[in-house]
Amino acid sequence: MNNNILEDLELFNEIIKEFLNEEKTTPASKFISPENIMKEIDLKLDKHPLDNEKYKKLLKQLINSTPKSSSKHFFNQLYGGRHSKAVLGDLLAVILNTSMATFKIAGPQVIVEKTILETISNLVGYSNESGGTFPTGGSMSNFMSVVMARDKIDLSINKRGMSKTLIAYTSDCSHYSIAKNASFAGIGRENVRYILSNNRGQIDIISLEKEIKKDIDRGLTPFYLNATAGTTVLGAFDPVKKLVNICKRYKIWLHLDGAFGGSVIFSKNLKNLVEGIENVDSFCFNAHKTLGAPLSTSVLLVKKKKYLYKSFDNDAQYLYQTHNKDY
Amino acid sequence: MNNNILEDLELFNEIIKEFLNEEKTTPASKFISPENIMKEIDLKLDKHPLDNEKYKKLLKQLINSTPKSSSKHFFNQLYGGRHSKAVLGDLLAVILNTSMATFKIAGPQVIVEKTILETISNLVGYSNESGGTFPTGGSMSNFMSVVMARDKIDLSINKRGMSKTLIAYTSDCSHYSIAKNASFAGIGRENVRYILSNNRGQIDIISLEKEIKKDIDRGLTPFYLNATAGTTVLGAFDPVKKLVNICKRYKIWLHLDGAFGGSVIFSKNLKNLVEGIENVDSFCFNAHKTLGAPLSTSVLLVKKKKYLYKSFDNDAQYLYQTHNKDY
Repeated sequence: MNNNILEDLELFNEIIKEFLNEEKTTPASKFISPENIMKEIDLKLDKHPLDNEKYKKLLKQLINSTPKSSSKHFFNQLYGGRHSKAVLGDLLAVILNTSMATFKIAGPQVIVEKTILETISNLVGYSNESGGTFPTGGSMSNFMSVVMARDKIDLSINKRGMSKTLIAYTSDCSHYSIAKNASFAGIGRENVRYILSNNRGQIDIISLEKEIKKDIDRGLTPFYLNATAGTTVLGAFDPVKKLVNICKRYKIWLHLDGAFGGSVIFSKNLKNLVEGIENVDSFCFNAHKTLGAPLSTSVLLVKKKKYLYKSFDNDAQYLYQTHNKDY
Repeated sequence: MNNNILEDLELFNEIIKEFLNEEKTTPASKFISPENIMKEIDLKLDKHPLDNEKYKKLLKQLINSTPKSSSKHFFNQLYGGRHSKAVLGDLLAVILNTSMATFKIAGPQVIVEKTILETISNLVGYSNESGGTFPTGGSMSNFMSVVMARDKIDLSINKRGMSKTLIAYTSDCSHYSIAKNASFAGIGRENVRYILSNNRGQIDIISLEKEIKKDIDRGLTPFYLNATAGTTVLGAFDPVKKLVNICKRYKIWLHLDGAFGGSVIFSKNLKNLVEGIENVDSFCFNAHKTLGAPLSTSVLLVKKKKYLYKSFDNDAQYLYQTHNKDY
C-alpha cells in the first residue's frame, strides 16, 4: 500500500462525503453482533497488504457499520453531536501531529493552550495564581486532582509512598472513576466514603459533615471531596458554595467534577448552578460532552498552579530543552 | 461562525494542501519566541467570533508558524515522520468520533482493536491468556504496568491502600516516567532503585541482583522491574532473557518499556534485540515513535489478561450496557 498523503487525503474526502450523506438518510447503522462481525467484515490482518481497491472497499464497509454516535440522531447519555469548527481543529491537529511537551517543538500551539486555559480561568473567577492543563479525559482529570490533594496533605507521599490512611468523600451519584482513582493513587477504594444524595441527586451536606467528624474521631485523615456538576443519571449539581465552607473548615481539597455539566460556566443563565466555583481547589469539564468538540477535549483547572507543579513537574534534561522558565 | 461540516472540510483541504506544499519548499518554520508571539499572531480570545475571512487567515498563520515536526526534514529524538495510511485512519476517527467504551457504541471498531492486539500478542509469543489495550501514551502504559504489579503483590492495596514499602528497579538510562509513576501509585519516588548501566547503556545484571538482595535483607518487598527496549539517548536494549530469570527467582513483575524501540518486534532482523520477550509480564511500544502513526498510538500487552481486569475492571451498570461477558 502506498504511503502517499495526497492520495489518502483524496480517499478521506471520498469516504467522508459518502458517510455524511449516509448519516442523513440512514441515521442508524445496522447492528451486527460481535459473533457475526468477522463473517460480514473481514478484519483479520494478513501478512501481505491489501491492494488499493480491496482496502478502500473494506474501509467503507467498516465505517458504514460503525454506530453513528456523533450524528444528531444518536440518543445516548453524554453525547453532544459535533461542531464543525472543533472537528476542523482536530483534523488539522492530526496532520500537524504536534507534541505539546515544550515550546521548542510546539511553538504557538503552546500559546493557544495557555490562552484557552487563562480565558476559562478568568471566567471561573480564579486569580492569576491558577493553572491548568488538558488531561486525556474526565477520569484522568479527576485522577490528577486526587494526586494533588494527596500530595498537598503530605508531600513526602510523593517521595516515600503512602503511610497513613487518607479518606475521600463523594456522593453516591458521582462518577465511578473516584473509587478507581483512589485505588490507583494508593489510597484504596474502601477509603472513599459514599455520601447519601437527596431525591434530586445532590450530596447531603449533613451526612457529609457527620462522616467527616466520624473519621476524624477515628484518627483518620479526611483529604479530598469530589463534588459533581452534572451527575451522569440525573444531571444533578452538588451545592458548591456550601461544600466550600465545609472543606475550608476541615482543610479538605474540593474538586468539582464537571465532566458532564461543568460547561454551564459558558452560559449566563446556567452559571449559577456552580455558584462558588471560584473557591474550589480544582475543576474539570469535558468539551466533548456538551460543547460539540471531538473526543477527547478535557480541561482541568487548578486554583493554585503550584500544586500542579508539586505533583507533576519532572526534570528530564536529557530529553526536554526548554526556552525559559515558563516555556 | 458557521457550524457547517462540508464547508469546514473544504477549508481543511485548502489549508492542508498549502501546508504540505510549504513543507516541501520551507521545511523549517521561522522561530518566533514566546515573548513575541502575541505581537505576530493575534491569539487572544474575543467575546465575539471572528468573521470567516479573518478566521481563515489566522488559522493559516498559526499553522505556518508551528514547527513542522512530522516532516522528513525534522530531526529530533523520537520523531518518525508520518505514514499516510495511519494519518488516514486518524482523520476518519476524528469524524466518526467513536468512544471505545463498549461494543454497543463502538461496534466493529472494537473488533479492529482486538484484532490488532491479538495479532501483536501472537507476534510477541504470548499465549491466549494474554490481553492488551491502547493507553494514552508511553508514560501511561508504564503507569498501568506499575499498578498491575503492585496489585499482583497484594490486591488489598487496591481496596485498602498502600501499607508496606514496595521497591521498583530500573536502569539509570530509563525513562523519567518510572519515578513519576511510582509517586502517582503511592509507592514513592525514593522507592525506585536506579541500577547502573554499562558503557552501552544496558542495565548491569550483577548490580541489579545485589540491590534486590540488599532490599530483601532490609525487609523491603521488591515487586517491579522496568526494562527498556530502546533507551532515549543511546537506544540501548536491556538484556530481556537474563532479566526474566532474575525476576522469576525473586517473583518480580517484569515490564518491558519499548516505547521507543519496542517496534523491533515487527522486524525479522532486529527482533533478536528483545529475545525472551514472550516471558515478560507486560510490554509496551509507541507506534507514533517508530512506525509513522500519529500521536498518540500506544500499545500495552499483558501476558495474563487477568491482571488487567484485577486492576482496571469497574462495574458501572448505570452507564455501560454491554453485549455479553466479552463485549
